[in-house]
Amino acid sequence: MAARNLAAVLHGKDDLRLEEIAVPEPGENEVQLSMGSVGICGSDIKYWAYGQCGRFKLTDPMIIGHEGSGVVTKVGPGVKHLAVGDRVAIEPGVPCRTCELCKEGKYNLCPEVRFCATPPIDGNLSRFYVHAADFCFKLPDTLSMEEGAMVEPLAVCVYGCQRGGVTLGSRVLICGAGPVGIMAMMVAKALGASAVCITDIDNTRLSAARSLGADHVLKVTTGDCEALAGVIQDTLGCHPHVTLECSGSDQSLTTGIHATRPGGSVVLIGRGSMQPAIPIVLAATKEVDIKGVFRYANCYPKAISLLESGKVDVKPLITHRFNLMDSVKAFEAAKDRNSGAIKVMINC
Amino acid sequence: MAARNLAAVLHGKDDLRLEEIAVPEPGENEVQLSMGSVGICGSDIKYWAYGQCGRFKLTDPMIIGHEGSGVVTKVGPGVKHLAVGDRVAIEPGVPCRTCELCKEGKYNLCPEVRFCATPPIDGNLSRFYVHAADFCFKLPDTLSMEEGAMVEPLAVCVYGCQRGGVTLGSRVLICGAGPVGIMAMMVAKALGASAVCITDIDNTRLSAARSLGADHVLKVTTGDCEALAGVIQDTLGCHPHVTLECSGSDQSLTTGIHATRPGGSVVLIGRGSMQPAIPIVLAATKEVDIKGVFRYANCYPKAISLLESGKVDVKPLITHRFNLMDSVKAFEAAKDRNSGAIKVMINC
Amino acid sequence: MAARNLAAVLHGKDDLRLEEIAVPEPGENEVQLSMGSVGICGSDIKYWAYGQCGRFKLTDPMIIGHEGSGVVTKVGPGVKHLAVGDRVAIEPGVPCRTCELCKEGKYNLCPEVRFCATPPIDGNLSRFYVHAADFCFKLPDTLSMEEGAMVEPLAVCVYGCQRGGVTLGSRVLICGAGPVGIMAMMVAKALGASAVCITDIDNTRLSAARSLGADHVLKVTTGDCEALAGVIQDTLGCHPHVTLECSGSDQSLTTGIHATRPGGSVVLIGRGSMQPAIPIVLAATKEVDIKGVFRYANCYPKAISLLESGKVDVKPLITHRFNLMDSVKAFEAAKDRNSGAIKVMINC
Amino acid sequence: MAARNLAAVLHGKDDLRLEEIAVPEPGENEVQLSMGSVGICGSDIKYWAYGQCGRFKLTDPMIIGHEGSGVVTKVGPGVKHLAVGDRVAIEPGVPCRTCELCKEGKYNLCPEVRFCATPPIDGNLSRFYVHAADFCFKLPDTLSMEEGAMVEPLAVCVYGCQRGGVTLGSRVLICGAGPVGIMAMMVAKALGASAVCITDIDNTRLSAARSLGADHVLKVTTGDCEALAGVIQDTLGCHPHVTLECSGSDQSLTTGIHATRPGGSVVLIGRGSMQPAIPIVLAATKEVDIKGVFRYANCYPKAISLLESGKVDVKPLITHRFNLMDSVKAFEAAKDRNSGAIKVMINC
Repeated sequence: MAARNLAAVLHGKDDLRLEEIAVPEPGENEVQLSMGSVGICGSDIKYWAYGQCGRFKLTDPMIIGHEGSGVVTKVGPGVKHLAVGDRVAIEPGVPCRTCELCKEGKYNLCPEVRFCATPPIDGNLSRFYVHAADFCFKLPDTLSMEEGAMVEPLAVCVYGCQRGGVTLGSRVLICGAGPVGIMAMMVAKALGASAVCITDIDNTRLSAARSLGADHVLKVTTGDCEALAGVIQDTLGCHPHVTLECSGSDQSLTTGIHATRPGGSVVLIGRGSMQPAIPIVLAATKEVDIKGVFRYANCYPKAISLLESGKVDVKPLITHRFNLMDSVKAFEAAKDRNSGAIKVMINC
Repeated sequence: MAARNLAAVLHGKDDLRLEEIAVPEPGENEVQLSMGSVGICGSDIKYWAYGQCGRFKLTDPMIIGHEGSGVVTKVGPGVKHLAVGDRVAIEPGVPCRTCELCKEGKYNLCPEVRFCATPPIDGNLSRFYVHAADFCFKLPDTLSMEEGAMVEPLAVCVYGCQRGGVTLGSRVLICGAGPVGIMAMMVAKALGASAVCITDIDNTRLSAARSLGADHVLKVTTGDCEALAGVIQDTLGCHPHVTLECSGSDQSLTTGIHATRPGGSVVLIGRGSMQPAIPIVLAATKEVDIKGVFRYANCYPKAISLLESGKVDVKPLITHRFNLMDSVKAFEAAKDRNSGAIKVMINC
Repeated sequence: MAARNLAAVLHGKDDLRLEEIAVPEPGENEVQLSMGSVGICGSDIKYWAYGQCGRFKLTDPMIIGHEGSGVVTKVGPGVKHLAVGDRVAIEPGVPCRTCELCKEGKYNLCPEVRFCATPPIDGNLSRFYVHAADFCFKLPDTLSMEEGAMVEPLAVCVYGCQRGGVTLGSRVLICGAGPVGIMAMMVAKALGASAVCITDIDNTRLSAARSLGADHVLKVTTGDCEALAGVIQDTLGCHPHVTLECSGSDQSLTTGIHATRPGGSVVLIGRGSMQPAIPIVLAATKEVDIKGVFRYANCYPKAISLLESGKVDVKPLITHRFNLMDSVKAFEAAKDRNSGAIKVMINC
Repeated sequence: MAARNLAAVLHGKDDLRLEEIAVPEPGENEVQLSMGSVGICGSDIKYWAYGQCGRFKLTDPMIIGHEGSGVVTKVGPGVKHLAVGDRVAIEPGVPCRTCELCKEGKYNLCPEVRFCATPPIDGNLSRFYVHAADFCFKLPDTLSMEEGAMVEPLAVCVYGCQRGGVTLGSRVLICGAGPVGIMAMMVAKALGASAVCITDIDNTRLSAARSLGADHVLKVTTGDCEALAGVIQDTLGCHPHVTLECSGSDQSLTTGIHATRPGGSVVLIGRGSMQPAIPIVLAATKEVDIKGVFRYANCYPKAISLLESGKVDVKPLITHRFNLMDSVKAFEAAKDRNSGAIKVMINC
């Protein structure tokens, strides 16, 4: 039986098409995968709705999707740790391996990284897909393909917690109770954080956060960041050691600077406006470091271990499921604020 | 009613006496405590049984005890964060606060540190005791006086895990399933370790370790450290990132060097012989760092948060209880290998 | 002969008076000093000219001065490492020694720190002054009192370089060629930086920087921060690993973010406007951390070693000298942009 | 004109032969080099004299040499940063680039690393040689081919100083005044160390060390390590923060543990006996970490910058020079303790 391949190709703003493409063959140190699940991320929606995301612009047709899992169907020459039939989570960015940053272990910052569904690199929302074998991580039998796809956003949270230095006894403020904020909360707890306070403007999200383990939830109803920081301090009983900004709101960043303990960190996982006004002298005087997160490096094994141990359960976050054929509907659900969607998953 | 004080004073080898002493008054930035519980530690037993512990020798009579908790009965001038009636865990070492090491945050290494029951400094196995207020840490209402006393050895484990860099996804080898080894296992898990293998020569201890959460337990039946390291690797499915040596066995140290992953650490929490033969070229070639632990610094709040959150439960480790009047019996039980004692607690 | 004391007391905006005050006596762990030299810092000028500096406001009369050196004239009880006649550099901030931040080694962030000439704490521009002995650091015989006074701003530069991770082979951008920028350049070189590019809008300052060792100097003539970053990259032959912002210009901060290599740091030593608009998404995407510097901790011995070894020579920076009696003139010279003053020194 | 290749092939103990071999052609991301200079290292001598070095054994004929520099004669496909005619220093170990350790930036610990002249991998003591382009580092015009070859041992010293945390104001003890010890001393100074004390049993070496910049030299005449540590402390005026063991003497390791300041490090650059008796309880109690060095990672650019800036001058260390045809004589000179050789260089 000849394998047929089908892919969700984004041709431009609002123009996502299911198309037959060739089945790719694995080269050296690569594997061919039959894709399992692919989650839809905010950046995917931006390419679909606006044709761009931050500084990256869609110019040519591109297969979408980067939060994926699959089953190995062929192994290329040189592959040792994987065999046909292995179920894997796919780390979507493959760096050059030769530049200074790669050699220092900061491969996420490699200027030549090829990252799925970041133009002009194709993603993996398709039936078959080929990837570097060492960026495919075996899934334990206890984890589903969907959980495998969730490893990607979970890795962002692991990396963000690491960058912020979350550890035993940390008090943590998380701004934004979307899927990333909630997963960041779970990771912080798994790292030993003694209390996590999570904020949002949406009661439904805050309820979800509370039911999934947040120690404190706080509805943001004011634009007075300093006052809000005071409420956060009262809620936690002290200043947070670390703030993880996961909302993309400029006000949250400012609130984080006001709230965080001297010597702590504000980590930007979300992205707000390009050039916001920030109380930077206050941050400097308190030595609250402002650190960004760009994807992740060396976090897939850690994220998988969190799922395997049950310390983090991402299943409640997957609210909507679609087949590959219904990818456009999946994108519509993911974009629709009224759909109640936390994470939309496409099964291939 | 005039307060009477009673203290367990060690006069020499095998000569522990209950004596009436004056009730001490708190000076500036000090508090007077009515002692709650005091645990017996291996070092206490060494002073009692041999009159010395490592390089420290008993020369004059000394009150024993350093794993203590109590209730504030008086506050000295300048004390702000504590009030009469507060229940506290007592961090027993008070450093000079002015030397280079104190100012760098490594106050445990202060050459002038005054540490309870390390000659010639008196300990706190007594009815009343005075201590620096900032080294007394409030206990949450949910924790007992006995748990308060357990904060001390738990802090050693927190510090040891930190020194070894235990974190999310770490695979950890722990040598020795005594109270410190078991608590170190619990702390490693609370920090996100994905798998802990604990070794011992005693089946009872290993059973305790397993029932308290160890992923793998391994009975040591060989003196062939390299072979044992191979078994550990098979058990964990990989080399441990970190080895925490808690047994005081020289063979365990050697096993740890053989077992640990290149770039990892072997942390010496236990103390073996003074000058053992060690495969140091192997350690160097693998860049397995050998790091000691001397008490702890800045770990009490973290240890208390672990107990408060329930991530670490030390209650099952407290197997024997005595009154202050029966301190000698308590020491006998703690020393007797056949008593089945894990941790012996004295209530004052 | 009874010692007479004289101090420069700031009574309010533009109201600095020389007044006789009591000669202070050293308490426990304190020393009495006959002051040698006191440098004038930008913050001193702000208190004098505006009655405030950042969030700190002058309310009551306060002795000015915090960059000081002196000779020990009396030692209080408990002082061991100093004797009458010792020449010392004075670290002006004495922390509480008991809070969490002090114990962690970040004593500069202690909320209770008493820092010379930060209201309401008196400074040390006087004949006699008393200070905590452990914050007085012996000067080698080869260093003058004036060099001793320069240890304070030099310590800021040492700390800033540390916070930025300047090390062997670092390429460093320094914004601002005032005394702090120039000393930061010298420190960066002493830490092994392979190339330092320093920017300013003033040719005279740039000439001074070049003659004192800057590899590259660059006159800023544009408000286009991105273009300027390109010129910096061309000048250094690569992106700087670290940017040290020493100018207090918001544009320099933005330029630093554009210029710095992914994974690097921008360190804020200078202070610009309170709430500037910053390309924070760019910083986050590049993982360029933004770190402030608030004074310093544990840097005096390092700064003194730099002077002693000759790796840093601060003497060329001292352009103006006054006697204590002429303190007002000294402040006028320090404030006057046309005086050509780099560092103004007052000898007591 | 057809290029002829000639290589120094080690066939077994004491059996080094000059042989004609094929001129290798560069593959993808590789360059072909006309070799310039190759230094002889202690490990080369061990393979030649004993047929093995540590755990590595010579089984088949192998080209010797790993401290090399050369000129690019051909570039393979994909090479961007090098062109024919470029002069380069060759980092001799090429890792797998795909394992966990490679991705974390610790590529020196890669279990699959292919390192020149470590059996069974051929070295580069030959006329023509092919190497991974990204492990060839351009030499500035001011540096000679011989200096290019010295980058390799210098990189070891850079890495050792980094591992030990040598920085501004560090007091450093270096055991052994051979070429590595002397270069380590120079690197420590370039990193800002305030005082370096170097020890040896050989007066000539100590004289060389002093003339090249050591602050203190100390002839070891005793086997009493504790007493020697006392002398070192007196010499430096304090405990060293870091000890760099470069002698391969077990006694030096013990001396380092006794001498080093609590909280410091002893770094093993040299290799002594496999299983020496070490005062490990003392090290643990002082928290003096024992860290090995296995080659280096990410150190070539730093080492080159040290040579380029003139902060480290390796030319005085090159005492003997031979042509490729006289390789056997070169090895004899390098092995002969009476030759006065510090570093023997072979020009190809």
